Amino acid sequence: MQAVPDAEPKTRQPSPRLDHETRTGQIYEAAARVFCEHGFGQSSMSEVAAAADLTKAGVYHHIASKDELLFGIMSYGMDLFEERVLDRVEQIRDPLERLRAAIRAHVLLVTRDRPKEVTVVLNEALSLRGEYRTKINRRKRRYVRFLNETFRELRREGLMRDIDPRVATFALLGMINWTYQWYGAGGRIRDTELAEAYIDLFLGGVLSADQRSNEGNGS
Amino acid sequence: MQAVPDAEPKTRQPSPRLDHETRTGQIYEAAARVFCEHGFGQSSMSEVAAAADLTKAGVYHHIASKDELLFGIMSYGMDLFEERVLDRVEQIRDPLERLRAAIRAHVLLVTRDRPKEVTVVLNEALSLRGEYRTKINRRKRRYVRFLNETFRELRREGLMRDIDPRVATFALLGMINWTYQWYGAGGRIRDTELAEAYIDLFLGGVLSADQRSNEGNGS
Repeated sequence: MQAVPDAEPKTRQPSPRLDHETRTGQIYEAAARVFCEHGFGQSSMSEVAAAADLTKAGVYHHIASKDELLFGIMSYGMDLFEERVLDRVEQIRDPLERLRAAIRAHVLLVTRDRPKEVTVVLNEALSLRGEYRTKINRRKRRYVRFLNETFRELRREGLMRDIDPRVATFALLGMINWTYQWYGAGGRIRDTELAEAYIDLFLGGVLSADQRSNEGNGS
Repeated sequence: MQAVPDAEPKTRQPSPRLDHETRTGQIYEAAARVFCEHGFGQSSMSEVAAAADLTKAGVYHHIASKDELLFGIMSYGMDLFEERVLDRVEQIRDPLERLRAAIRAHVLLVTRDRPKEVTVVLNEALSLRGEYRTKINRRKRRYVRFLNETFRELRREGLMRDIDPRVATFALLGMINWTYQWYGAGGRIRDTELAEAYIDLFLGGVLSADQRSNEGNGS
């Protein structure tokens, strides 16, 4: 499974799932659907094969193991996350603007787009083993570092209260990642409203008093 | 599996796992350990049996199915949660004091005590099926309602900003429930510090400006 190297995003090769035209791509697509619906541990390769309209032997001709499938799906989930969130916002110079953009893009990815593969990343963090787990965790840590650095910058500029950047980072990750557990598309709260409410709530919690009142007047 | 009715907490019968002296209790204890470590879907009844020092047939003499085991473990997890968090704080009259106490107790349950059964509740929300899932979700909703009501009360008293109580509820649940994914006991951030930081961050985000400055002076 070398299809998803740990290289920089720009030189990254496409994940196997990206190519719908190949048989392998179709298996990944079917497996993501099955794992998303029943959970990885409770899904069998027979179910994946049935969903891909193949025999089990047919699946094993293309894929070595269920673990490899899970890793491929998560790699694609991380590709999506990086393309739609991290790669888009990390170049924003102003740390406050950068943080707002990250919260907005991340909330919308999880609530509006809801790619199966991102749901699997969130759901099955503990199902992945060994080297596969290490590789996915390395990619996740890039986002953790990005948030942590953004909070440190806000503190250096005197824009943030005396809150440990690490605590702020994980509080924010929890707030946003948890949404997939309760947020129903088409419900009473619109996805864009949720994104703005989370920005408002979270910035209200971390910003210094001066900055908070600027926020209040500005938005 | 009638051991855990949906009745009021005071009339609740003990979950099977509470009684370590019985063989059934020992099986629940072993299963909680196995599910917590490997995940429910990836654990077999043979592994549970081995961990309980029994044969698989011996386990099935006491337990009807793996699903029943999961439900029993989660029921006990919810017992613990209600005993240590909800039952203790819901009688506090002042909504701000009540919210602080709930955040503190909830964070400490997840980070300091880390009962296996509570971890299973958080990890395996999607593994439970049918009637079992309905029953556990009913108990979870009691806490959701409690938080929601507390936020509504804060708003009625003019203590909270114009934030949808439902959004505040799920933001808070996400922040706290996610900690089990990243918080390592014995790490750089102490559990009690984390609890106070979360109270501070979250109240900073939801309280009205006046109330926030009172908070700032008070703590």
